[in-house]
Amino acid sequence: VSLPVHHTLRVEPFGYPLVIGAGDGLYPNALATFGAEKASSVALISDAQVAATGHLERVEAGWRSLGVPSLRLIVPAGESSKQVSVWAELQERLAAAGGDRDLWVCAVGGGVVGDLAGFVAASYLRGVSLVQVPTTLLAMVDSSIGGKTGLNLQHGKNLVGAFWQPRGVVADVGCLATLPTAVLREGVVELYKHALLRDAAWRPARRGTDGFILPNVHEQSAWSALVAAAVQVKADVVAEDPHERGVRAHLNLGHTLAHALEGVTGGTMRHGTAVAYGLLYAAMLGRERGWVDWVADARALVAWAADAPLPAVDWGAIWRFMALDKKRRGGRVRLVLLRELGLPERVDDLSPDELERTWLRLRSDIQGGVV
Amino acid sequence: VSLPVHHTLRVEPFGYPLVIGAGDGLYPNALATFGAEKASSVALISDAQVAATGHLERVEAGWRSLGVPSLRLIVPAGESSKQVSVWAELQERLAAAGGDRDLWVCAVGGGVVGDLAGFVAASYLRGVSLVQVPTTLLAMVDSSIGGKTGLNLQHGKNLVGAFWQPRGVVADVGCLATLPTAVLREGVVELYKHALLRDAAWRPARRGTDGFILPNVHEQSAWSALVAAAVQVKADVVAEDPHERGVRAHLNLGHTLAHALEGVTGGTMRHGTAVAYGLLYAAMLGRERGWVDWVADARALVAWAADAPLPAVDWGAIWRFMALDKKRRGGRVRLVLLRELGLPERVDDLSPDELERTWLRLRSDIQGGVV
Repeated sequence: VSLPVHHTLRVEPFGYPLVIGAGDGLYPNALATFGAEKASSVALISDAQVAATGHLERVEAGWRSLGVPSLRLIVPAGESSKQVSVWAELQERLAAAGGDRDLWVCAVGGGVVGDLAGFVAASYLRGVSLVQVPTTLLAMVDSSIGGKTGLNLQHGKNLVGAFWQPRGVVADVGCLATLPTAVLREGVVELYKHALLRDAAWRPARRGTDGFILPNVHEQSAWSALVAAAVQVKADVVAEDPHERGVRAHLNLGHTLAHALEGVTGGTMRHGTAVAYGLLYAAMLGRERGWVDWVADARALVAWAADAPLPAVDWGAIWRFMALDKKRRGGRVRLVLLRELGLPERVDDLSPDELERTWLRLRSDIQGGVV
Repeated sequence: VSLPVHHTLRVEPFGYPLVIGAGDGLYPNALATFGAEKASSVALISDAQVAATGHLERVEAGWRSLGVPSLRLIVPAGESSKQVSVWAELQERLAAAGGDRDLWVCAVGGGVVGDLAGFVAASYLRGVSLVQVPTTLLAMVDSSIGGKTGLNLQHGKNLVGAFWQPRGVVADVGCLATLPTAVLREGVVELYKHALLRDAAWRPARRGTDGFILPNVHEQSAWSALVAAAVQVKADVVAEDPHERGVRAHLNLGHTLAHALEGVTGGTMRHGTAVAYGLLYAAMLGRERGWVDWVADARALVAWAADAPLPAVDWGAIWRFMALDKKRRGGRVRLVLLRELGLPERVDDLSPDELERTWLRLRSDIQGGVV
């Protein structure tokens, strides 16, 4: 058993801390770093699944140690909680409890809880303080950082929301031991993507004979280091482009096809699975234009992390979702490809024909058992 | 007939322009000043009452002159449109129309439309550009400036929203000629309040033998100057305190009792009427402590602007709403009083007993026909 190491990074230009670690002192120390003792009360927003583990109790105990009274607001687990009616009900409950402008909101959960609770914090009384406590690997390395909050509409995902930066983020790698394997691997997909975007040398999840070699989930120091490195990539990109007007788009590596796959499956495909397929698609498109060939790595990632087959739909269905995405971005299908490992570029000169051919090749590769 | 004069002020630290004027060139010129030709499309959000006047057409023509295609979204007139379901429906319609991040939202109406459309702009795709076109005097001198947007919840007014600054505000004093007298006078109450907060010397609405002497609504140059002076007060206060942490509270002069009156009447009392009573209440409380005596002026304002009697409720009902307000502000009933004309101060040492006695005196004064 290794001793947990705490890492503290900062997200600029906002300056708030990201604390990554484990162990008893984690929450009291991190919350004190955020200045959370100034809160008049805290609304702990979480979902039923997280509440069933011990994580919520530990977070609540952290707030109690600062003398801040807490209110628990538990929503059903799953994407369907990211809707307007759930958000409105949470606001009514804050108002009913007399929450004032010094109320803090603390999101304890995965991406859904973080997005929902983040938008509650962004809008209650025109904005109150927020702490993000991501409990999944995916949320730790991605969604909890950068201030994106949002809800889904009938017309699509994340169409409503705000950029709302937290006062701080606490990633407790002790949570990882309670994650189902598929959920842990989903996080590794985003972690791997962050590695591809920057310094490929630190790529922790190397392909071995039996897939990816990762630390045991109980090796908290190793996981703290791994998460801290991935988080640093995201924090750097956010610092460079806080409002997603430029390079922040690099984080969409693998996500253009992923969003389409999530669309055609009606949201039933796991995000990490969709991104794994999307990364392989991006790798194949890049190889086509003579850029770095990382197709074998991406194939291995799919084999290891994808927990559902590619949907049996034709190109037209995928294209409709890509075209919708395109319209929202102002007229072009834009993908992120890798010129070199660690050197992403936005590409918007891909022909529909090229996109279709590569989709067909991806499908036959996967179905043909090449993976 | 005087020629219309255009005034352009800036709201710092945001730097956006407020254009006040009238006439044919107003909208094209103002929109060009805001850089609105960059919009991919514009959603004109208005209400049925405003749409029935010619104002919406004139605004739309302004956008057309810049070559920007428009979409009209008309909500029912009245406070009930400031609710979550209306806001959500507007977002669905923007998504259905394929609105991208370069869509602009243009609010054309009074305070309700401005608050609602402002929060749509603040949250659609995590925030798009906004133009405020206030069509009532109240919205021109108050709600359209400063970036406050919001919705009502079942538990209270304006409990959800965002600070979202517009790209610009256009106040067309030509709209004033179509306002019912009570609505125009409502705006004068806030305009008068702004005068009390700053330089009482420019107080345009002087008490005469038959109430308040104001320019004829067709004297557009005089009204432009009047509105510009009131707007300057608000813009100065916002610049000093953009997120309402300090002196911006001075704008609440008269509003503590006003909110309670709106509460006990279930929102049926006109805001300007409630503020007029609230100003008289503040004047009486100030006189009690030996500060400047402006009770006679405030009485005259009530006599001229109030279009509904004081509600026949006892002090307990008023106090419950004040206490709720107090709770949200962190424990104290805080009123703004005038030490001198132009010298507002927040006061939080008023005893419940003093507040009640002054309420009873206010009620007997008004009912006793002293006004």
